[in-house]
Amino acid sequence: MATRFRRRTLFATPLAALAATSPAPARVHATGDGVPYTPEQYAELLGRLAAQGKAQPDNYSLGGAVEELEKRMAEILGKETAIWMATGTLANQIAVRILAGTRRRVLVQAESHLFRDCGDCCQTLSGLNMVGLAPGRATFTLDEVQAAATDAETGRVVVPIGAIQIESPVRRKSGERFDFEEMERISAWARERKIGMHMDGARLFLECGYTGRPIRRYTELFDTVYVSAYKYFNSPSGAVLAGPRSLIDGLFHTRRMFGGGLPHGWPFAAVTSHHLEGFAERYRKAVETSEAVIRALGASAKFEIARIPNGTNIFRIRPVEVSAAEFRRRLEENGVSAAAPAGEWLQLQVNETWNRVSAEELAARFLKAAA
Amino acid sequence: MATRFRRRTLFATPLAALAATSPAPARVHATGDGVPYTPEQYAELLGRLAAQGKAQPDNYSLGGAVEELEKRMAEILGKETAIWMATGTLANQIAVRILAGTRRRVLVQAESHLFRDCGDCCQTLSGLNMVGLAPGRATFTLDEVQAAATDAETGRVVVPIGAIQIESPVRRKSGERFDFEEMERISAWARERKIGMHMDGARLFLECGYTGRPIRRYTELFDTVYVSAYKYFNSPSGAVLAGPRSLIDGLFHTRRMFGGGLPHGWPFAAVTSHHLEGFAERYRKAVETSEAVIRALGASAKFEIARIPNGTNIFRIRPVEVSAAEFRRRLEENGVSAAAPAGEWLQLQVNETWNRVSAEELAARFLKAAA
Repeated sequence: MATRFRRRTLFATPLAALAATSPAPARVHATGDGVPYTPEQYAELLGRLAAQGKAQPDNYSLGGAVEELEKRMAEILGKETAIWMATGTLANQIAVRILAGTRRRVLVQAESHLFRDCGDCCQTLSGLNMVGLAPGRATFTLDEVQAAATDAETGRVVVPIGAIQIESPVRRKSGERFDFEEMERISAWARERKIGMHMDGARLFLECGYTGRPIRRYTELFDTVYVSAYKYFNSPSGAVLAGPRSLIDGLFHTRRMFGGGLPHGWPFAAVTSHHLEGFAERYRKAVETSEAVIRALGASAKFEIARIPNGTNIFRIRPVEVSAAEFRRRLEENGVSAAAPAGEWLQLQVNETWNRVSAEELAARFLKAAA
Repeated sequence: MATRFRRRTLFATPLAALAATSPAPARVHATGDGVPYTPEQYAELLGRLAAQGKAQPDNYSLGGAVEELEKRMAEILGKETAIWMATGTLANQIAVRILAGTRRRVLVQAESHLFRDCGDCCQTLSGLNMVGLAPGRATFTLDEVQAAATDAETGRVVVPIGAIQIESPVRRKSGERFDFEEMERISAWARERKIGMHMDGARLFLECGYTGRPIRRYTELFDTVYVSAYKYFNSPSGAVLAGPRSLIDGLFHTRRMFGGGLPHGWPFAAVTSHHLEGFAERYRKAVETSEAVIRALGASAKFEIARIPNGTNIFRIRPVEVSAAEFRRRLEENGVSAAAPAGEWLQLQVNETWNRVSAEELAARFLKAAA
């Protein structure tokens, strides 16, 4: 394959791999949504889970650790049942496909992953007409939904809307959240009309860490919810799609038709379940630490800090007295790994590794690196 | 998920798991195409490969151990390049999809995995018309291909045939091989007409162990070839699709559109590569051992033996003096694991574990269990 794509990855960052072999246990990885693992560390974790009986084999993605994850995730999300998928791309497509049924027009954010980054999969493979709302923005409004519905009903051929998908937070908008009150209004409107509601909640657990809202306050607004297994639950791949039995049961066959019926998913599912337990509490602590750090740095003249309005775990920082590249190098020396800067700004991400040190210690590391 | 399917699996067999923890190093698993691993053993192997630098991370299935496997497999299959896929279902569909192009009729065995066991994926997701030839048989003939081509050309609307897929050996026909001379004739005929040729070679390496033909004698007859990574190369999942650069380059995008762009495939690919090296030699030895065992048992009055005509690694055995269930129990005690009998017959499969003991020793175990 000649084509190459630069993407954030838990495993491929050379700096992260370097850090993992250093003796310092208190390194903070201010890049990525999750905890970086080297292949050795992943294999070690898998071996540990297997020894504890927490990595029971599945059979074509049925049973074992896969089923355990499905059950636990359904419970947390407040849904009747759930099904494991190898990727979020597949989870989202299958969700809007089943929700739409014979009503083939689907409303979605123009900036969503499904609309922009999945190769027009819903249009090409499922024959859906995906209508992208609110280009350039994280949120579309109920007014925009109603206008789109009117459009669909007033053509010479009526095309009923079968489903609405909402992604929150929105990765292409640097983790900005979909406006929650608007989300509630749209959900109520859609339910009155029996239009299916799907949430791309790839990073939903991160959003809850910032809004303090319980997970179920979101998921109750939707029929189906997808959550990523690989971003902050640190699995090499995987996703979970939760919803009512009437929609989810039997998706074994659809999953397999799409080529997503992995003979064994347990090496992924077991690691996901491991990180899922207690995640909300651990992440809340990481957010608290990072907010204290950001306040401390904001009080210093050495930095300019930019937050994302209605954002989540992404913020930007510009060192005033040193170049961004030099600042990053010194941060690395001082136990904080960051991604390469864009111009004079570093984009930092808050994840569980922010729990490894106190806010005071971490702020001191930033200040030292900026001196 | 309420639905449950019983399938052969490397990981889920309780007997295999039991055997793996027993001290005997010389157990033969006469079930499955590969070597059974417990989760602990898989994690241990992965850790060993990682420590040896043989499990380099990939990034959305690009680079690292995934790319290494792609390169090595392309070389062995005699193709310009190859791409890793999470499942064979996806590999086959994408292959016939790209080969067919705008010519949407595809010929395939009616007993093939793609025609029978993939949920009509090519028809439903790729808009192909799959025509199943030779129902009930492993081989279709050039005559049947020509008849199908005539059918396609003599309707009121001409529908050109874009691709022909051949599976060999055929799993639904108990590992029976597609007739090789017919395969050669069909390939020559198709190439004259620029009709694409795809091989479902999920178990191609097993077939070569029986026919003695070099892998490339098969693959040169096809534009694209799929080989399974999980059956006898003992990976939890995975597949490789090999072919010319003109067809394979850029399939990163198609793979991802189908939801098969796993963020990390290295935990699967590294294990596949490990078992790929030297497999042909090891498997040839296993076949020799098993053939000697079958000859010895065939000479005894204690057994009835049924081979598959033009078969590969599956045969059936009936103990004359004891029940099949009792025979299986005693076999297990004597270091040979077998699947549950169907009636009075046991279906046995030859895999690498047959190398663990001499033919004499293994025949003695069978004879002892049948006494």
